[in-house]
Amino acid sequence: RTLRIGLIPGDGIGKEVIPAGRRILEALPASLGLKFEFVNLSAGFETFEQTGTALPDKTVAILKLECDGALFGAVSSPTHPVKGYSSPIVALRKKLDLYANVRPVKTVLGAAKPIDMVIVRENTEDLYVKEERTYDTPEGKVAEAIKRISQRASSRIATIAGEIALRRQKIRAAGNPSIHKGPLVTITHKSNVLSQTDGLFRTTAREALADPRFSSVAVEEQIVDSMVYKLFRQPEAYDVIVAPNLYGDILSDGAAALVGSLGLVPSANVGEGLAIGEPCHGSAPDIMGQGIANPIATLRSAALMLEFLNEEEAAARIYAAVDANLSEGKLLSPDLGGTAKTEEVVADILGRL
Amino acid sequence: RTLRIGLIPGDGIGKEVIPAGRRILEALPASLGLKFEFVNLSAGFETFEQTGTALPDKTVAILKLECDGALFGAVSSPTHPVKGYSSPIVALRKKLDLYANVRPVKTVLGAAKPIDMVIVRENTEDLYVKEERTYDTPEGKVAEAIKRISQRASSRIATIAGEIALRRQKIRAAGNPSIHKGPLVTITHKSNVLSQTDGLFRTTAREALADPRFSSVAVEEQIVDSMVYKLFRQPEAYDVIVAPNLYGDILSDGAAALVGSLGLVPSANVGEGLAIGEPCHGSAPDIMGQGIANPIATLRSAALMLEFLNEEEAAARIYAAVDANLSEGKLLSPDLGGTAKTEEVVADILGRL
Ligand SMILES: CC(C)[C@H](C(=O)O)[C@@H](O)C(=O)O
Ligand SMILES: CC(C)[C@H](C(=O)O)[C@@H](O)C(=O)O
Repeated sequence: RTLRIGLIPGDGIGKEVIPAGRRILEALPASLGLKFEFVNLSAGFETFEQTGTALPDKTVAILKLECDGALFGAVSSPTHPVKGYSSPIVALRKKLDLYANVRPVKTVLGAAKPIDMVIVRENTEDLYVKEERTYDTPEGKVAEAIKRISQRASSRIATIAGEIALRRQKIRAAGNPSIHKGPLVTITHKSNVLSQTDGLFRTTAREALADPRFSSVAVEEQIVDSMVYKLFRQPEAYDVIVAPNLYGDILSDGAAALVGSLGLVPSANVGEGLAIGEPCHGSAPDIMGQGIANPIATLRSAALMLEFLNEEEAAARIYAAVDANLSEGKLLSPDLGGTAKTEEVVADILGRL
Repeated sequence: RTLRIGLIPGDGIGKEVIPAGRRILEALPASLGLKFEFVNLSAGFETFEQTGTALPDKTVAILKLECDGALFGAVSSPTHPVKGYSSPIVALRKKLDLYANVRPVKTVLGAAKPIDMVIVRENTEDLYVKEERTYDTPEGKVAEAIKRISQRASSRIATIAGEIALRRQKIRAAGNPSIHKGPLVTITHKSNVLSQTDGLFRTTAREALADPRFSSVAVEEQIVDSMVYKLFRQPEAYDVIVAPNLYGDILSDGAAALVGSLGLVPSANVGEGLAIGEPCHGSAPDIMGQGIANPIATLRSAALMLEFLNEEEAAARIYAAVDANLSEGKLLSPDLGGTAKTEEVVADILGRL
């Protein structure tokens, strides 16, 4: 099987980590029967400065028409408002209907405080519809934004959360070590204040997860503020957390803090027939150009992309190689307290494939 | 000076901790020259079940017309949507224009990981305006909520954040130990996605803090997801964090997790001529009636209320008594790993006043 993969480095350290993602795919053992074709695509703030648009139509079209998967690096947000600029990753998620943002957060075997959770973030609506307006009043400017929650999007995100919970259970049942007993989905919302929007998310998610095929999945709820509290007090209790877009954004950064570095946490933007891997970290202008960015979030994002392209064995190889590097703990990038360069970490992990 | 204080226990453990708040005010040394008059007021889910409204007009009127301050316990959110019910604390904040929700999060002296920050949360707008609507589409229900950010509210919350930063600096300058060198305000927002609403919050807060009287205050920004990450990775770096309503809600629960228990964290809802102390914890139905609720969040909320009524010396007495109890660590409630009852903790702290 040949997979066509778009590469969108974006800005900053995106350019340093996306090549690592390409290399690990190329280094997968031939016995897996996978071939890759790569196509370089542009997006980001630099692209905006050069072309006037942060997300060229060509990038969207090629992803849509030609690619099975893609790797997206990171984009710089301008430090001051720039007219006409808006985040290309948010636009990409919507334009390609990549409705699920899946963010596994996991410690390696033997960690003092083991954590193994996935945050499943709705990826197309909520405040990310970016419908805003500003008006003047006698007391000054007022701005409003729409938070939109639909039954359709809430239902499909809860459904994929349930499916992920079942898939994780299958991996556990296959003898893989885990801190969890059974599959659990935690629905996060703020329906005590937002009774209609978050209320719709909550009841729709409940309904979707009441489907008989999820009968083995336990379902519970957490109000988002309490969820953040619990995330830090007892992270080991959570398996799959499903949340509307903005809460999912916040929760996944919070969860990343628990495992020591954003540089470890992958994500996948998943739609019908397309999955885009994306490290959770940003473009990190403070360390860019030094060759010290942690490539692990990107390597794991490549694996996660493969999972959603049904190449679970290939994904497992990458995860295992990364875990072996981390467990040994000798070649770590500076964000993990080590001194290794990006290049050294990549070489070490490729060697373990 | 006689202060008239409303007591609103609300639901669940609210009824167990608010009496403790009253007792500590009554136990303040006579040398401070403070007298208290208390008035019992009702609000909450039980009140809703009995009277059809969660926030009786009488409660609002007495607070507005007669009280200098108040203590609010907690309210239960129904586990299923209940027609006509909506949170009385959210309504109270808006009706009395208690525009700032101030939440100090602080470890006691000698903590392994010292933290000393205040979260200053805008308390009247954002998604808490609760303007929602639901409509049908061919693809199912869609619900929308308005997130409203005004220049006026953003300006005054940033201003009080700056004032709090200066006040904290004064206390440090008076020789009180601190982990901070100088005053710092961190503006939290998500203007990379919400350029108009959070953009307005950001630029307005910047402008307010550019006032010459804040010239000694350092000002920086964090995107909310990154703020949650940093909160957990380097909490010691933060002094005053100012945020729109919802982010402030989430951040303060997150910060509470850092100091070990929500049962420790106070808040004050502050407006012109009125301050309502409110423990950050909820009504905790799981432990209610057992007499084991941690009273410290309420005792500290009483102190915080006094601070905003310009009774800083009285406040300092309460803080010191609470800190002495915690530092000794012998009489702790179960949320802190101890076995002491609410009553025993209160008695111990009163004895240290
Ligand atoms: C860069 C930003 C627009 C983006 C988001 O908010 O989704 C990022 O935080 C993420 O989580 O991928
Ligand atoms: C109970 C709830 C409405 C409230 C809020 O969201 O403000 C609570 O979480 C708080 O922080 O005081």
